[in-house]
Amino acid sequence: MINTLYFTFTDKAIQKKAFDAIVKEQEHIGYYNLPDQDIAPILEYCSTISEAIDTIAVIGIGGSSLGAKAVYEFIRPNKSMKRKLYFFESTDPVNITTLLEKIDLSRTHFLVISKSGSTVETFSVYKYLYALQTDISSFTFITDPGSALENYAHEAGASVLHLPKNVGGRFSVLSTVGLLPLALCGIDIKALLEGAKGLKESFFNDGYMKGILLEKASFYAKHHAQYHINCIFAYSESLKYFCEWYVQLWGESLGKHQRHSAFNVGLTPIGLIGPKDQHSFLQLIMEGTRDKSVTFIKIEDFQDTLTIPNVSLPHMEALDMLNDLPFAKLINMQCDSVIEALHEQNDIPLDTLTLSNISESNIGALIFYYELLTSLVGELIDVNTYDQPGVEAGKVILKKKLSQKM
Amino acid sequence: MINTLYFTFTDKAIQKKAFDAIVKEQEHIGYYNLPDQDIAPILEYCSTISEAIDTIAVIGIGGSSLGAKAVYEFIRPNKSMKRKLYFFESTDPVNITTLLEKIDLSRTHFLVISKSGSTVETFSVYKYLYALQTDISSFTFITDPGSALENYAHEAGASVLHLPKNVGGRFSVLSTVGLLPLALCGIDIKALLEGAKGLKESFFNDGYMKGILLEKASFYAKHHAQYHINCIFAYSESLKYFCEWYVQLWGESLGKHQRHSAFNVGLTPIGLIGPKDQHSFLQLIMEGTRDKSVTFIKIEDFQDTLTIPNVSLPHMEALDMLNDLPFAKLINMQCDSVIEALHEQNDIPLDTLTLSNISESNIGALIFYYELLTSLVGELIDVNTYDQPGVEAGKVILKKKLSQKM
Repeated sequence: MINTLYFTFTDKAIQKKAFDAIVKEQEHIGYYNLPDQDIAPILEYCSTISEAIDTIAVIGIGGSSLGAKAVYEFIRPNKSMKRKLYFFESTDPVNITTLLEKIDLSRTHFLVISKSGSTVETFSVYKYLYALQTDISSFTFITDPGSALENYAHEAGASVLHLPKNVGGRFSVLSTVGLLPLALCGIDIKALLEGAKGLKESFFNDGYMKGILLEKASFYAKHHAQYHINCIFAYSESLKYFCEWYVQLWGESLGKHQRHSAFNVGLTPIGLIGPKDQHSFLQLIMEGTRDKSVTFIKIEDFQDTLTIPNVSLPHMEALDMLNDLPFAKLINMQCDSVIEALHEQNDIPLDTLTLSNISESNIGALIFYYELLTSLVGELIDVNTYDQPGVEAGKVILKKKLSQKM
Repeated sequence: MINTLYFTFTDKAIQKKAFDAIVKEQEHIGYYNLPDQDIAPILEYCSTISEAIDTIAVIGIGGSSLGAKAVYEFIRPNKSMKRKLYFFESTDPVNITTLLEKIDLSRTHFLVISKSGSTVETFSVYKYLYALQTDISSFTFITDPGSALENYAHEAGASVLHLPKNVGGRFSVLSTVGLLPLALCGIDIKALLEGAKGLKESFFNDGYMKGILLEKASFYAKHHAQYHINCIFAYSESLKYFCEWYVQLWGESLGKHQRHSAFNVGLTPIGLIGPKDQHSFLQLIMEGTRDKSVTFIKIEDFQDTLTIPNVSLPHMEALDMLNDLPFAKLINMQCDSVIEALHEQNDIPLDTLTLSNISESNIGALIFYYELLTSLVGELIDVNTYDQPGVEAGKVILKKKLSQKM
């Protein structure tokens, strides 16, 4: 993965302080260790699932679904999958019914994923599906050790897998939470983790990524009051769900009360897909308020030869310049043109991330890159990157309403 | 549709000025007239498409696809459709191949939609598909009168329909651009327009919507420097693509150089879906910088009886309060709980839009509501709501690259 910055920030003292803090954080934040884990137990568990199962359905929401979905949807169009993967992640009844129409219960294995073990959405849907499919061996549970959900699952005779210690939901894609559904569908999770590991080592062992990540994070933090909207502009439809994963990671980690002040701070994530969003959001970036940074993500080699045919159409000769051009080349030219146009503005912080191709290794690296960037920026803008106290108030009100049947 | 504001703005002089400007704008901006159009020609054209055609594929991008997609995806889960609808809206080769695998060319009718007639994405894909499916009667073209595309289509012997005068792409969903694909798939476009017409009349004829839209628009405009991120938080999965339509409408209309100053201004749209995004973006709204307004959209009656069964599970008794609750009731309780939690913060501008049910009439009203709101805010923040000069620079660079085959 190549990362080119179109901005600079050279305060090495600040960068060293951030790096040291992250090195220390490894002692108590679990996600840093995930690239080095032993995946044999996960692969072994996968082998216990019958070959007659052709569908995996995750019952989970937020951090329990977004990561696996990001990887699956990135790889799927380019690889024949062993099983289909669906996500029950809403209490919308229409959505539940629509999903149920797509699956055959007798050939589906369900993964019930809830870190706390008491997520309202997950448990509502689980109760409904369990009433339809009462064979408990069709369900596997993933939760924190000792949760009420674990106790229930044991009593019901179901299998339980654990989240590793100190890994929060939105940083859990490279744990059992993401790896189990992905491995069951035929995604190469070894390559996924190797990609993440390469990125990790490059950062922690003075490699290419250390300087770049520190420079980018410190620039974002320094200018967070001005450039407080951080757009990803990905030129590949298959990165659509990666953008959704990024939105949770960035928004939920960095929208906080500062630790040493009472101020509300926050960096707002936006996910865009090119070239489609050139016809939507680009105008706002180009001429709107100067409050946005933009990171372009490109696929260097789509490994695809689909080509615009050499056809000249009467009255449309002006577009003959498209003839014989591979679509893969066109989409990257479109991306380069937009970068150039924005760069000419001079006051929009830009950078590009180039993935060599669509592969497990590359998405693993991209995931770990964004996790590290989030940790660094969180440290530098002085927030607790790993909690989410703001979502509790709504849950308390809901429980009150439920108990009063309001 | 009921709109409840949790904020006030009472300067009647400013509101009157905005209203008068919009009344005057009707003389030269075409979208205001769309609810009153005669749809007989569109329905008649639909009847010329063979019953053997079971798939409609739109080749179009931005304003040529987002509107029809928003309506189709809103209605589809609740209604059996006459035909399937797909959208070719990217130059991503993997995406084109994936879409082609889903359709049977011999049973597909293509709608090539380009206002200017020379959109690079649309024409690249058209050339490719035309080489596969050389029978020109499988294509219908929608473009501005007199465009090169119209001339080509006529020469090729294909049918051409026109966009009405002075209707821009992102305001075109209620014109042929949206109505033709929707009608071909069995969407009741008469009801769609009636919903829009009801909203229009309520606004222009001193009805319920006049005061509310003026108050909301003037509040947004007055505080645009502070609350410059405007979130829609829709509690229905079927509004996902409505959010994408809103993002284009709002961002591309309101991100501009001001007319009477050199300043860049802009209101940034964000589309969220509940309850999913309670587990993603909500933390940032709750504790992040006070720069966001939030509009909740609720479906009052999902017309769905799916219910959480009355099952008590050992160790999980705390969640028995969910038993016997219809999902439709739960999702609205979740929405109300988040509204209450945010309202307690006191400094986040909130409002709610309640649709009585999932119907063509309601989505028609919602579309026209947002178009009017956009026009009003654009007028009040002093931008040209209807152009998009910022996207030209990238197009010029691309054409240069293409001609040099760089």
